[in-house]
Amino acid sequence: MQRLVTLTTDFGTSDHYVGAMKGVICSINPEVRIVDISNAVQSFDVLDGALTIVQAYPYFPPDTLHVVVVDPGVGSTRRPLLVETGKYLFVAPDNGVLSFVYEREERITVRHITAEHYFLQPVSQTFQGRDIFAAVAGWLSKGVELSKFGDVVTGHVRFAAPKPKRINEKTVKGVVLKVDKFGNLITNITPKDLPELFAEDAPDFRILIGKAEITRMRKAYAQGTPGEVFGILGSMGYLEIAANRGVAARLVGAEKGSDVGVVLGAATLVEKA
Amino acid sequence: MQRLVTLTTDFGTSDHYVGAMKGVICSINPEVRIVDISNAVQSFDVLDGALTIVQAYPYFPPDTLHVVVVDPGVGSTRRPLLVETGKYLFVAPDNGVLSFVYEREERITVRHITAEHYFLQPVSQTFQGRDIFAAVAGWLSKGVELSKFGDVVTGHVRFAAPKPKRINEKTVKGVVLKVDKFGNLITNITPKDLPELFAEDAPDFRILIGKAEITRMRKAYAQGTPGEVFGILGSMGYLEIAANRGVAARLVGAEKGSDVGVVLGAATLVEKA
Amino acid sequence: MQRLVTLTTDFGTSDHYVGAMKGVICSINPEVRIVDISNAVQSFDVLDGALTIVQAYPYFPPDTLHVVVVDPGVGSTRRPLLVETGKYLFVAPDNGVLSFVYEREERITVRHITAEHYFLQPVSQTFQGRDIFAAVAGWLSKGVELSKFGDVVTGHVRFAAPKPKRINEKTVKGVVLKVDKFGNLITNITPKDLPELFAEDAPDFRILIGKAEITRMRKAYAQGTPGEVFGILGSMGYLEIAANRGVAARLVGAEKGSDVGVVLGAATLVEKA
Repeated sequence: MQRLVTLTTDFGTSDHYVGAMKGVICSINPEVRIVDISNAVQSFDVLDGALTIVQAYPYFPPDTLHVVVVDPGVGSTRRPLLVETGKYLFVAPDNGVLSFVYEREERITVRHITAEHYFLQPVSQTFQGRDIFAAVAGWLSKGVELSKFGDVVTGHVRFAAPKPKRINEKTVKGVVLKVDKFGNLITNITPKDLPELFAEDAPDFRILIGKAEITRMRKAYAQGTPGEVFGILGSMGYLEIAANRGVAARLVGAEKGSDVGVVLGAATLVEKA
Repeated sequence: MQRLVTLTTDFGTSDHYVGAMKGVICSINPEVRIVDISNAVQSFDVLDGALTIVQAYPYFPPDTLHVVVVDPGVGSTRRPLLVETGKYLFVAPDNGVLSFVYEREERITVRHITAEHYFLQPVSQTFQGRDIFAAVAGWLSKGVELSKFGDVVTGHVRFAAPKPKRINEKTVKGVVLKVDKFGNLITNITPKDLPELFAEDAPDFRILIGKAEITRMRKAYAQGTPGEVFGILGSMGYLEIAANRGVAARLVGAEKGSDVGVVLGAATLVEKA
Repeated sequence: MQRLVTLTTDFGTSDHYVGAMKGVICSINPEVRIVDISNAVQSFDVLDGALTIVQAYPYFPPDTLHVVVVDPGVGSTRRPLLVETGKYLFVAPDNGVLSFVYEREERITVRHITAEHYFLQPVSQTFQGRDIFAAVAGWLSKGVELSKFGDVVTGHVRFAAPKPKRINEKTVKGVVLKVDKFGNLITNITPKDLPELFAEDAPDFRILIGKAEITRMRKAYAQGTPGEVFGILGSMGYLEIAANRGVAARLVGAEKGSDVGVVLGAATLVEKA
């Protein structure tokens, strides 16, 4: 039995950190196959890690083991967890980095990893991605029974993504969750929050972000005219602010955490005055 | 039968995009082996993608499947293609990203991928790297017959790299195709364009680029003296402007798209005046 | 027999270089498994490469082949080496990039790789990572006998990491070896150099670096209070200057090569005057 192992970390690819983790996993299970989801999660950024894993994990084959290490609390009392859904396994620190996985899965079993004989000894207080998570992943990939790693626990940390607020009938206020590699601004606004915006026969609207006022939704990036910034329902399921072959974040002057407002209805004279 | 799969994309490694693609491929073919060529092609830059794949693909074993997704036209009418050479397979959007492959191969067969039952459903209009190209790659890696994906077509998009111009007997004008990780400036000038420059007994010459006037060709980077900027026939087959343990792009003040001129013969008094 | 192959290079991930190397290895040995340690070693920086490989290689399974290409001397007379320890193989240029491996291993055998029939022909003078090191790695991964690649030699290049200096009984002066992805400043000061600093009952001390004067050691990053910069014994075995969820390098205004001083004992009035 060989489980595929994926890695999602904020360790970057310029240092030895990810290499050391892979070495530990391969030493325990020389036949293992490891796939990187991303090792460039923003440093210390549990929300960024949570968004990355939730967007990738459901595409992997059943029984894949997802190792998620965004762990600013390393060496503190935060627990290392082993989480089982019907289909996948996860190992991660108990800091909420799996929040969106919990949200998406109907049934999860959470264990506190306590079986130290599976750890790399001595366990450092600064690199448990190597000493705990990679070592446990190696053993799990070989098929060691889940119950051997620790008991089922409750009270695991979970947070909700910041939700957009419906200010009034016509106005929703949200926030930029992340800027992707292309400079697309991924907001936290979904079709559920504001169905009108994503409808075929959308009413007039204005999206206010940075220094821009956006009045067009597009279905595909390539529909944008040169220099135009538009809204689009992105593949992550959120309203994105984008530009055709352009860097929207730069064009509108916004970044992660920036406010975004959507106002339905044509602008009135008063508002424009 | 197991085809090796390579990835060349502009999706970056900071987001979930490449991870999701790998998940799709592995879900269809859990035994597959995936090798990254580069996922850091410059965003939307089909020429950069074309240069990357042409410099790497011939080194892979026969029957490798190369997945090339630099796809600013995603969701538009551009066709997804399956290209067969005598030795390799490619899947890519029909936007010219395989132009240099077409140029290099004597015999190619191009198919328009239309068999939607191989796609991930529903197909998004913003991430077909996942929904079409990765899914098709998964099935191809398992050995599904090429003809099942769609019919042979013609009229595939191809572009030529910008060619250097011979201004007169003594002068060639070219352009910087890319700047590599070391800061080397890779121009579009080859030994075919200007054999004298690369000859053992090269005549006097001047390479004009950015704020620099270069008068030395070197055979190896390490031959450069400290601070010297020189020309060299790089491993890509082009004239490179480089520096020994230095960042040539910064030293000469040039970048992708910068002009480069080569003038054969000693500078004359008139030219210098 | 299948040796795992790791890559540690300064070729970056934006160009085709690493992809071409992997293609060469896979062409020679289609069954090979390749693991990236890091391809983002700082350009031309043999010390950075030496630190990366030494921190990762001991975690890999026995018989792993580590390919280390940080090779500013490519095309010069520097020798390509095949190094055997009791447990691992290394191929690398003879420029000191394996210095810390030599330091760590009791018994090594060093060969000068001269068997050109294992190289990719023609061998370029600018990309021997592909033409020599990857090709040799491919053959080694298949189990070709070490003696076939060349004779045992001596006189391989090795350097010592810059050592901290004990200025007087109370003062040690060191240097920042590298800044990691999190902005942690990894110094060259170890518990051997200054046991008092790392002791449970450490005396008063001041660490002087950049514009900061640091007076606290922490055991875990998460122990730091917001905005605090502290010292910590990092997982690399060195004194690190770090901040809890912060970028220490920016907070103290220091970088690779910056001086760091440690003064034991309480500050005196005279010193403060």
